[in-house]
Amino acid sequence: MIAELIAVGTELLLGNIANTDAQMISEKLSVMGFTVHHHTVVGDNPQRLSEALETARKRADIIITTGGLGPTCDDLTKQTICRTFGREMELHEDILEEIRTWFRTRMGKEMPENNVQQALLPVNCTVFDNPVGTAPGCAFQEGGVHVLMLPGPPFECRYMFEHRAARYLEKLTDGVIISHEIKIFGMGESSVEEALHQPMTQLTNPTLAPYAGLNECMVRATARAETRQAAESMLEPLVEQVRATLGDVVYGVDVDSLEAVVSGLLRDRGLTLSAAESCTGGLIATRMTDLPGASAVFRGGVVSYTNGVKAGVLGVPEELLDRYGAVSDPVARSMAERCREICGSSLAVSVTGVAGPDTDDRGNEVGCVYIAVASERETICKKLSCGRGRGRDRVRSAAASHAFDLLRRMLLELPL
Amino acid sequence: MIAELIAVGTELLLGNIANTDAQMISEKLSVMGFTVHHHTVVGDNPQRLSEALETARKRADIIITTGGLGPTCDDLTKQTICRTFGREMELHEDILEEIRTWFRTRMGKEMPENNVQQALLPVNCTVFDNPVGTAPGCAFQEGGVHVLMLPGPPFECRYMFEHRAARYLEKLTDGVIISHEIKIFGMGESSVEEALHQPMTQLTNPTLAPYAGLNECMVRATARAETRQAAESMLEPLVEQVRATLGDVVYGVDVDSLEAVVSGLLRDRGLTLSAAESCTGGLIATRMTDLPGASAVFRGGVVSYTNGVKAGVLGVPEELLDRYGAVSDPVARSMAERCREICGSSLAVSVTGVAGPDTDDRGNEVGCVYIAVASERETICKKLSCGRGRGRDRVRSAAASHAFDLLRRMLLELPL
Repeated sequence: MIAELIAVGTELLLGNIANTDAQMISEKLSVMGFTVHHHTVVGDNPQRLSEALETARKRADIIITTGGLGPTCDDLTKQTICRTFGREMELHEDILEEIRTWFRTRMGKEMPENNVQQALLPVNCTVFDNPVGTAPGCAFQEGGVHVLMLPGPPFECRYMFEHRAARYLEKLTDGVIISHEIKIFGMGESSVEEALHQPMTQLTNPTLAPYAGLNECMVRATARAETRQAAESMLEPLVEQVRATLGDVVYGVDVDSLEAVVSGLLRDRGLTLSAAESCTGGLIATRMTDLPGASAVFRGGVVSYTNGVKAGVLGVPEELLDRYGAVSDPVARSMAERCREICGSSLAVSVTGVAGPDTDDRGNEVGCVYIAVASERETICKKLSCGRGRGRDRVRSAAASHAFDLLRRMLLELPL
Repeated sequence: MIAELIAVGTELLLGNIANTDAQMISEKLSVMGFTVHHHTVVGDNPQRLSEALETARKRADIIITTGGLGPTCDDLTKQTICRTFGREMELHEDILEEIRTWFRTRMGKEMPENNVQQALLPVNCTVFDNPVGTAPGCAFQEGGVHVLMLPGPPFECRYMFEHRAARYLEKLTDGVIISHEIKIFGMGESSVEEALHQPMTQLTNPTLAPYAGLNECMVRATARAETRQAAESMLEPLVEQVRATLGDVVYGVDVDSLEAVVSGLLRDRGLTLSAAESCTGGLIATRMTDLPGASAVFRGGVVSYTNGVKAGVLGVPEELLDRYGAVSDPVARSMAERCREICGSSLAVSVTGVAGPDTDDRGNEVGCVYIAVASERETICKKLSCGRGRGRDRVRSAAASHAFDLLRRMLLELPL
């Protein structure tokens, strides 16, 4: 089945925001087995929205709109869709009550009267109630075309797609589609494609598809079958084949991130972590504490951006700093060991390197990074060249990812 | 003049990437005074691209395509545009030589033969040579419609728009267009719109337009005139009017971020900063060290995510932690004072609060944050409610922004 996405919002045409809703929905539709041929963006303009809808209904089986469901007068999606598809609207008292409650409990005030129109929905539609915002979505079928309306704010749109629209759409597909994401760090997308060339090009069900990410990549295995169990049993050997082919660069299946994997490993082993960061400047700590419940495994750390803090707060011997420079193996090791001691953690990771834009005063190139991990038993250190020629941001994020990968390898006793 | 953007690339329809090219170009077109009515995305499919072009030429004066200029067989933009607009293609020997040189010097190898087609361009077009990649862009006019082709990779697209397409488009407008961005923290977009309702709705040249950002907002003042100087002299009183109306919530004009402003103020005054972070978990340090040259003003800090690190590394008295809890005025003050002392900085900022998802063990709600700044002279502390009901990420980023704003206000001796 062919799906088409129409985003409604002048803010998109002014370039205030990118159409990330379209990306999110397209990715999910692709996994579910739907084909997307067009994305369209129009402003808060009923005439142009109506034209886009007329065009879409001729070439698509499913139309999904995002945006334009709010209470202000420029939010015209529902009205325009109903006029285009010849549907009346009706007030849903239960939805109105939910919106009133949302205002009282979340905003601590009474609902403004113009929010009443958010409870006006097409007759005979499937209502998508919205527990994360005030604008409900909905769906109906007319002349063989399914029309789904979702709110525009990305957080709401994602929630409403995953918890409401996906269920509606699942009923339109034959059987079930299941996919698993095989996450990879330390092997580039083109090498992954080369290694998996045969299954990627020859398989039709299940399928394997590669995706590039920031500093890492991913392979998605997808199967379509009559039951969930049948799909899973098609995927199991394929995921195993990918693992066997790629080896320990696979850091997880259906996991969020390297730091989430490290956090899980620490938790399972009852260990804690701290971080001493120079060039990453707090990025490792930020990524660890982005995870809810981080305090169980992450104690904290020191951002030793200057030698004064490396010596004064961490207690790295000044002699090491003078003799080897801040970007060196002995200083990285000392940073990790001292951090572990003062933070009282089971493990500590340290990063010191040159983020750029310039080489350091000892001639270390941009991207030259030392990463050390200290444990009760030993301290290990690796020298890496991170994100060379790709700017300060990329050096920093690559260095942080490498630090998490080194921790993962140490915790799993893999080659470092 | 009306512009329409057409992005070409199956990876967009699969949701691998978001259409950030459209956002970037739309924002720039808006500043230049062009109006965008539609964005369209099609896959690497000549038939659907051709239809999109036919539709666009009927309703737009300018069509800008992004993507589909590469050497692989699915890159069909030029061929399809030429067929649709009835143009022949010709080989540009000089462009071919540039591509050959690019491969030799950047990639260290000879140009693969299929890259020859990148030097095939429409006859009588304006060539946009591409010093940051291999795919040149181009533009021509046909039947009153200007068609511009730009490469898809975001870095190349931005460069080619700013340095090539913008000059082509400037000739289509009368005179020059200049704009200034007035950055605002501490006043919501709707309040800003209310305060500036009259100039925003009544002015036509210069104009004022509001933009929402993450935790902050922005007003863009734009003027069109015959010369740069004339445009600037129209903008000057308008920017002053906005400053006078909004007051000290305006943190800068044409500046990057709150942290860049704070960094500049510290540099001007010869001061240094350190940060003691609990709930922000390193985000303040990360944002400071994202700025190139940060080491001149930022010494480092402590991520005291647990009470053990607050006491053991920072030296916050355990008695304060026991008596008031980690999320409290006395602990925030002590964190800032201790951090300033151990890091040896002129100023230190501290943040302690509840990022969520749950309230803390003393019943402090999610979003309750204490921010303190310690200087040689005094320590100040503010209690805030940050990003309530908007999730962990938003609480953390709002708290970090508030910390930078408090520093700005302290450095400028503004009301706190």
